[in-house]
Amino acid sequence: MPSIFSKIVSGEIPAYKVAEDDRFLAFLDVVPVAKGHTLVIPKKEIDYIFDLSADDLADIHKFAQRVAVQLKRAIPCVKVGVAVVGLEVPHAHIHLIPMQTMADFSFAKERLKFGAEEMQSIAESIRIA
Amino acid sequence: MPSIFSKIVSGEIPAYKVAEDDRFLAFLDVVPVAKGHTLVIPKKEIDYIFDLSADDLADIHKFAQRVAVQLKRAIPCVKVGVAVVGLEVPHAHIHLIPMQTMADFSFAKERLKFGAEEMQSIAESIRIA
Repeated sequence: MPSIFSKIVSGEIPAYKVAEDDRFLAFLDVVPVAKGHTLVIPKKEIDYIFDLSADDLADIHKFAQRVAVQLKRAIPCVKVGVAVVGLEVPHAHIHLIPMQTMADFSFAKERLKFGAEEMQSIAESIRIA
Repeated sequence: MPSIFSKIVSGEIPAYKVAEDDRFLAFLDVVPVAKGHTLVIPKKEIDYIFDLSADDLADIHKFAQRVAVQLKRAIPCVKVGVAVVGLEVPHAHIHLIPMQTMADFSFAKERLKFGAEEMQSIAESIRIA
């Protein structure tokens, strides 16, 4: 069965897309730990990020870097943090988190909630940044 | 003034080294969130990871991947997690965290403490894995 992220890639499930090329996709996390919290995934479904080939791993981080630069322009922050946890959805994904303080970098705290219009507006602001 | 990590690179401050080449260095975090918690740094001092050139960013992640593979062999775990926070030491560093559960991926909890001999033994087990 395809992962929830593969369903986003195929268009079966909608997402607030931020960037896309033929191999990678970036979209907003729907349960963000900070405003602008973005997920970057390989379109090819693979569970563990370190099972990517060295070249694919290099390329997804180059793609994530381009997204992070736009993210920092769109969402004022001290830095964009990076996390790969991978114990929930079995499809490798890189979290990009615009951080004001250390506290923004926590997966244990209660997640934020933005309405659909605001999510669209956040995604748009990152896309055009 | 050189960062604490540059002092580790120069040898001024000792570290439990795990892997090294001419551009990158991996060593144990002395305040680990999990056993085997390793830091990967560029020897060139740069504060924000996304200020690395795209090629340097790609290469540090390829280097980190090789370390993560050895780490998972040496420290039994479900996956090796990845984090770049960067709000503490102003020298870019990638955390590699052997995770059993989500709870291992927390920078807010109390850090673990291992004695010098055990740290040496952990570093050695990763180096030879």
